[in-house]
Order: sequence, then C-alpha cells, then structure tokens
Amino acid sequence: MGFPFRYSRAAEVMRPSPIRELFKLTQRRGMISFAGGLPDPMIFPVEEFASCAEALSEHGRVALQYGASEGYRPLVGQIAARMVPLLGREVPPEEMIIATGSQQVMDMVSRVLLDPGDVVVVEAPTYPGALHTFRSTGARFLPVPCDENGMCVELLPGLIARCRRDTGRLPKLIYSIINFSNPSGACLAADRRVRLAEIARELAIPVLEDDPYGELRYAGEPIPSVFSIAGGEGVIYASSFSKILAPGVRVAWAIGDPDLIRRLVIAKQGMDLCTPMVAQVVVSEYVERGFLESHLVKIRTHYAVKARSMATEMRAALGGRPVSWSDPEGGFFLWLDLGDIDSQVLFARAIEEGVAFLPGRAFYPGIDETQGDAVNGARFARLCFTFAQPEEIAEGCRRLARCLS
Amino acid sequence: MGFPFRYSRAAEVMRPSPIRELFKLTQRRGMISFAGGLPDPMIFPVEEFASCAEALSEHGRVALQYGASEGYRPLVGQIAARMVPLLGREVPPEEMIIATGSQQVMDMVSRVLLDPGDVVVVEAPTYPGALHTFRSTGARFLPVPCDENGMCVELLPGLIARCRRDTGRLPKLIYSIINFSNPSGACLAADRRVRLAEIARELAIPVLEDDPYGELRYAGEPIPSVFSIAGGEGVIYASSFSKILAPGVRVAWAIGDPDLIRRLVIAKQGMDLCTPMVAQVVVSEYVERGFLESHLVKIRTHYAVKARSMATEMRAALGGRPVSWSDPEGGFFLWLDLGDIDSQVLFARAIEEGVAFLPGRAFYPGIDETQGDAVNGARFARLCFTFAQPEEIAEGCRRLARCLS
Repeated sequence: MGFPFRYSRAAEVMRPSPIRELFKLTQRRGMISFAGGLPDPMIFPVEEFASCAEALSEHGRVALQYGASEGYRPLVGQIAARMVPLLGREVPPEEMIIATGSQQVMDMVSRVLLDPGDVVVVEAPTYPGALHTFRSTGARFLPVPCDENGMCVELLPGLIARCRRDTGRLPKLIYSIINFSNPSGACLAADRRVRLAEIARELAIPVLEDDPYGELRYAGEPIPSVFSIAGGEGVIYASSFSKILAPGVRVAWAIGDPDLIRRLVIAKQGMDLCTPMVAQVVVSEYVERGFLESHLVKIRTHYAVKARSMATEMRAALGGRPVSWSDPEGGFFLWLDLGDIDSQVLFARAIEEGVAFLPGRAFYPGIDETQGDAVNGARFARLCFTFAQPEEIAEGCRRLARCLS
Repeated sequence: MGFPFRYSRAAEVMRPSPIRELFKLTQRRGMISFAGGLPDPMIFPVEEFASCAEALSEHGRVALQYGASEGYRPLVGQIAARMVPLLGREVPPEEMIIATGSQQVMDMVSRVLLDPGDVVVVEAPTYPGALHTFRSTGARFLPVPCDENGMCVELLPGLIARCRRDTGRLPKLIYSIINFSNPSGACLAADRRVRLAEIARELAIPVLEDDPYGELRYAGEPIPSVFSIAGGEGVIYASSFSKILAPGVRVAWAIGDPDLIRRLVIAKQGMDLCTPMVAQVVVSEYVERGFLESHLVKIRTHYAVKARSMATEMRAALGGRPVSWSDPEGGFFLWLDLGDIDSQVLFARAIEEGVAFLPGRAFYPGIDETQGDAVNGARFARLCFTFAQPEEIAEGCRRLARCLS
C-alpha cells in the first residue's frame, strides 16, 4: 500500500524511544538486560492485585462505565490523603487529575502550555519519553547540566537570560525529575529546590515536578518536594503507581493549580476521555486494603539489595578500571561515567558479550552542541538494577567489565 | 493561587464536552437523562467480566508490566480475526494498534497528520469529541452536510475545491462515523461509501472511518466498510470495545497502512506508552471465553427494544406535533428534527420538566456560518435511548412532549 500520507511536522520529528530502537538486540537469547527501566516482575503483587479484582464485581456498573475525566473519586481521595506529608498540605479534589500514566501527564501539560517553538527547560540528562512528548508539540529545549545533586539550578538564571536573548522567549516550563532521576539516579539537593522554587516564582515559569521514584528511597533522608517549598504555587507535582505498584495499571496523577487542572481535564477529554475505570477501581481497592503500603516496604528492601548488589558486583568486576558512579540511594538506575570511552561503542561490544544497557546520548536533548561532551552524553551509560534477576546482575557486570578491557 | 500560567493556543480553543457542561443539570434529582451517550449499566456483563479477571492472576507478570505500544499481542490477534469479515481481508499485526479508547485513535491520527491550520473534513453533525481533538491540534473544519444516508458525499468534490481556493489547502483528513452516527444515527449509504473511497484515492486524502456502533445493528443489512471497498488503501478503520462491551475498559483499535501505524505507535509512546495491560489482558480473556459474542447477541436485542420503545413512546406523546426523525436501525441515538423550534430553548424547558437531552448545536463545527440553520444545528436534538431505563423512556418522552406544547 503506497498511499501518500502527508504527515505532520510532529510526526517528522518524533523518534521511537531508545529502548524500543534497541528492542530486538536486547531480546536476543541469553541477553542480560540492564536496558529497560522496568520493575522486577518477580516481585509484582500478582495474587494481592488479582484478589482486588473482586471490586470489578462489587462496583461493576461504575468500573465498566465511562468515568469522570478528573479520575475515580475514591481513588482521588486515597491519593490525596497519601500525598499530604509529601506536599505539605491537604489537596482538594479540584487540584488533582488522574492520568493514564505519567506519560499522559506530560502530554496534557504540553498540550495546555506549549505552542510550537516554545522552550522547555530540561535536565541534561533527562527521561527520553519527556523529550519525545515535548518535542511532539514542537517544543525546543533549554538543557541544564546536572551533577550528583541534580540540576545545576545556579546556572538556570544565566541560561534563561541567554535563551531570552537568543530566541526572544522566556521558557514556558521547567521539567525536573527531582528524586532518583531517570537516568542519573540523582536527587535534586534541598537548597537547589528552594532556589528552583524562587526562580519559578520570580520568572513565572511553572515547574513540572516529576516524581515517580520518590517513594523508592533505600537510604538517606527524604528531601522536601518543590511543591511543598513553593506552597504549590506554579508547581505541577506528578507521580504514578507504575514504579510503586505496577506499570501495567497505567494510573498516575498530577496535582496543581485548580485553573491549570481544569484545563488538563479538558485536554484529557480529547486524549482518552478518562483513565480506564477498570484499572482505577482495582487500584483503589488495592490501596483500600492496605496492600500498597506493605508492598512498598517489601520492594524498598528488595530493590535496595539489588542496588547494592549491582554496585558491588560492578566494582569487583571492574577491578580498578576508570569507571565511576554514585551509588544510588533509591530509584531504578546506576549511571556510569565511562570517562574517555564512548558508550555507543561500548554498547555494540556489550551486545556481542550478551549484556545490554542504554547509552547516554538518548538522555540528552542534543540541541545545544556547544555544551560539549557532558551534554551529548557519550561518556555515560544507564544500567537498570531492578529488572534483572540476582544471578544475572553478577554475570551481567562481569560481561560488561570484559567489554571494558 | 494566582500563578500567571501562559496557556497554549490549543488550551484557549479547547471547550469542555457538551455533556460535561450540562453535567450538573442532568444530575439533578429526578432528572431523566437522554443526554449522555452511555451504554445501559444494567446490561453490563459484570459477573462474566469480573470472572475474566482470573487472567490477572494467570498472566500477572505480563498484565502488571509495561506492554508493547502496539497492544497486547493475543488481543491484537483476536481483534484481527473478528475484523476479517468487516474489512474484507486478513489484517497482519503491523496494520493494527490498540488504543486507550477511540478518542485516543483520533488524538494519535491528529498528532501524526495534522499541523495547525490544517483542514479536516467532518460531517455536520458529528461527534463533538472528535471536533475537540482535531481542534486541539489547531485544525480547521470543512463541514459536509448530512441527510438520512449520512454524509452528502456528492457535495464533497465541490466543497474541497472551494476549500482549496479559499485556504490554499487540500484537507488533510476526512472523518466519518459510517454506521449509526453519533449524533444522527444515520448510516453512510453503500454508493456513497464507494464514491468516498474514490474521492479519497483521487485526491490522496486519507479517511478516518470511525465505527464504534457498527456491530450494534438492530435491523436491516450491514453495509460494506469503506476500508473493504478501498482495499484498505488510505483508510484508517477504528472501532472500540466501549459500546459492544464496556467503556470503562478504554480499549479500542485502529487498522491501517503499516507506515501510518508505525507512526501512530511512536505517537502513542508520547501519550501513554501503552494501553493499560490490566484492561487488555482481561478483555482478551473475555473475548477468548466467547463472552463477547454472546453479549453482543444480548445487547442487540436489548437495545433494539429500547430503540423501538423510545420511538413508539415519542410518537404517542407527541400526538401529531411537527417533530420528525428516522427510526434508528442501530446504535445509541434518536436525532429529532424540531423544525422551527430551537433545541437550546427546548432544552431549558426540558430541564425544568425533568428530562435532559443534547441540543444539536454541539454537534456542528460552527465554523462556516454561511451554510445556514442545518449547519448550526439549532433545530436538532440528540436523544440517547440506551442509557435510560424502560419506565424512564416513556416518562421522559411525555415530559419532552409537554415542553413542545
């Protein structure tokens, strides 16, 4: 079929996700994959979750019908109650929307705030799925370098001023993964959060505070959210059940200014009308029965062991080779700094050895070539420690170390 | 909180769905609602569906994990098999994508085909949710009048030529609800489908053939799909489980050219990564157990009775008042032609009497004011006959007739 579709500009700039591009390679027989950012399927609460499907019988007429675009009201209430300590205050229903995964939060926020050509401040490195969504609305990026304490917020005023000078535009949005960032695993330091909230208020640039990993802290103390520091003003806080329960439910939420939320609700009506009620009803039952809190305790321990294991095995396997990283205090990822080694070259070798990871380039917007190597990410590699099984972690690290010889 | 968000142009043109705007009115105590286009919750297959949640236990590690953006492979196969008679040929997996409701199909297609300012051919009247989605990408509309045989396809070449002259643009997409249209209940006549396929091919304008009601035929013979007539060339066929099973699952599908589908898959990654696996796995089990086919037999009978009942009660209640409609042979709606009466005025009176419907204006793009009354829809009213209970249908028709006195 050679029908001459005339595709949109958005279609022309969209790129498949990096993990998708590598999918066939990572699926090879015997391959150990540190590539995808997936939870460990062996720890999914399969029986508890399946038992909560009784709610589909009890609340069948609600679960099978269209639901409110704002979300299933009991679930909204449960999430709001859980969020109080994190956000520092009560969250009334008109400040929340349930979304079909955090990805949809990004899409809704893009739709409501971004016009083609608008600038979004992003961390370099950041989540490629966010870049994908922003890019598909025609956005451009203002990347901000990161270190082990997250976004270098002190550079932000200067970068924004330069952006304004060069493009005539003030950025429309600041996107930050504040805790255990994908890919770097870094947490935005407390003083930087305070400064970020100030900058956002002073320049009237809203912050999308993306926090899917915040509850997966294995060591150290929690840091106040930007939302709580700002009293919610100009901050859209987003989180999800994907990492703390299961991605297959596709239930996430965003919390923010009521006028913004009202617009997100209207945008969502044009996207999928409502998040699947069958998923929301079962998740709500799961939370109601107290399973979520006990599961969280369980996975924190489980993933902490895996994180330590990968760090230990990697150190042992490397035997002094000049590869460095910060041991993660939470989240899903180890972010290797390979120094002079190009991670794309390493990746090709690693696939031959039977181990997969994601090369760093995918996590950089790749717009501003003037910011050098740190920005295009060639020296970095993202390794996910949650998905692989314990024996695979040790063997995978050994294979990777062989490639580094 | 008075944070000065700078909203996008899309946010400024988005309008809440008409049913949402009227929600509070239609929820008043004692109100009989013919307004929402909802399935009858009393006929939801609650126990059968809930029993299929056993699959969440059996396939837990798949159901709870991220899934392919293309859709859950077993479900893709099941849908493809069901679609063969309708589409006139086999459908390989690379020609299908599963979406989070048909609304997402529209959103994906918009994202991949439409740039701001692009023109979409729509039926007048059409589904307001489609207008909402297209509008949010900055699209303009070329409305085509409809009669009891659907879109007046014979007017299409002239309208397109005029559009080209006036705007310098060929439309990017033709959107048609071919069977039992929302709101008019009309089916696009067979000869018009042939002509539509020809026009689409000649002018290289793809058709989005939206068919959520096609399997809900209560009388008469099925008409070949535009997809089958065109051999699939340039046609994106979309349908959904919302009306034949339950909207709360939010599982729909689109079938089309592999290159287009590949782009929809990439677009979907920026929207919600994948349709909730928990919903897809349970729906797949439901289909696998043969429940869908038996449920379809049941709801066709059930809704046929309701359709007849509303037509009969309405005729009896009206007692010769000059209100006309075509008795629906399927779908969800009765589309009243009120002649000189403005349906918005009638609506206000009806709410006082305790019966709700949707005034016709909401179903017209409202761009081209030159096409007169038929285009702005003031004389029409959409009544949904599936949602209200039998005793409510009779009483609601009587209330409505009183308003027409």
